Amino acid sequence: MFTLFGDKVSGNCLKVKWVADHLGLAYGWVDVDVVKGEAKAPDFLAKFPMGQVPAVEFSDGRSLAQSNALMLHLADGSALIPADGFARAEMLQWLFWEQYSHEPAIAVRRFQKFYLGKPDSEIDPALTTKGHAALNQMEQHLAKRDWFAGAGLSCADIGLVAYTRVAHEGGFDLAEWPAVRGWVARVEGALGLA
Amino acid sequence: MFTLFGDKVSGNCLKVKWVADHLGLAYGWVDVDVVKGEAKAPDFLAKFPMGQVPAVEFSDGRSLAQSNALMLHLADGSALIPADGFARAEMLQWLFWEQYSHEPAIAVRRFQKFYLGKPDSEIDPALTTKGHAALNQMEQHLAKRDWFAGAGLSCADIGLVAYTRVAHEGGFDLAEWPAVRGWVARVEGALGLA
Repeated sequence: MFTLFGDKVSGNCLKVKWVADHLGLAYGWVDVDVVKGEAKAPDFLAKFPMGQVPAVEFSDGRSLAQSNALMLHLADGSALIPADGFARAEMLQWLFWEQYSHEPAIAVRRFQKFYLGKPDSEIDPALTTKGHAALNQMEQHLAKRDWFAGAGLSCADIGLVAYTRVAHEGGFDLAEWPAVRGWVARVEGALGLA
Repeated sequence: MFTLFGDKVSGNCLKVKWVADHLGLAYGWVDVDVVKGEAKAPDFLAKFPMGQVPAVEFSDGRSLAQSNALMLHLADGSALIPADGFARAEMLQWLFWEQYSHEPAIAVRRFQKFYLGKPDSEIDPALTTKGHAALNQMEQHLAKRDWFAGAGLSCADIGLVAYTRVAHEGGFDLAEWPAVRGWVARVEGALGLA
């Protein structure tokens, strides 16, 4: 049993929720409105010094943050972590890549366009260039493989699908990346999100 | 046996080298000059589609990228990965945080100031703000703990020390963060870098 603090418009928070739901874990959910600054409030910071969601408080009072670390911790020992060492390393490779080369473009552009309502002309064009490069990278991998690591659904797929499935809200039309689009449907099917 | 492709001015590459050296692993090193664009050359991309260093080619021809994933893979089964599940999750938490909230400020500002020679007035002030926030976060943790995860040196410390120990080259004077400075010396000592 644990408590997941999150915001349901955040793909990073949904990653952790999907892992918990997929594995049938028992947890409570506490809404934290990031736009209203609730993750920077003193009582939140006292529990979670990083001041970000998702964040988890365990029943023994210990706390943990960072979406991909939370997924990996909750999924420890499950089929969402490949048993093979190299496949596990590939999963980690894609999860680190997601936080450095995917989320900062695709999630950030979506936030600015969809949630803040910024017109395209006011959004840094580097976000589009970087987002296209990330989707091209995924397309190249998915042209040859059904999943990002190992032979089935892993935390790498869940981490990457979170913002890829809503990339259109950020102005990225997945029709240009057919293998990515097929994989999104595959992951949504496996998670029961479709 | 494996081959590590890297650039010795890159903290991300040094992380992987330090883990391999600390564990006494046998490997070859191939210099890749990132500034000259060698990581985007067709022969490099054929091996490593992400077009980044560090990257490793194993003796069976398989390849892997992303500094933190490489460290974790090479250190699998060693004392650099805490045996306790929660400590392992804390290590991952800090490694994901490093790539999202530390490296993009501290390493990027260092690159612009130290390697490109940009005057402070031409460097985005957001890099300074974000770098200070990252160092404050580390200071808060290190005021209470000697290491980032578990009871001794782990991949989290090696991942975080890479750019923290050269933060002054990016204009961050560690005298303002004494617990961070003490921890840098501790990690350098453990790795034999001091």
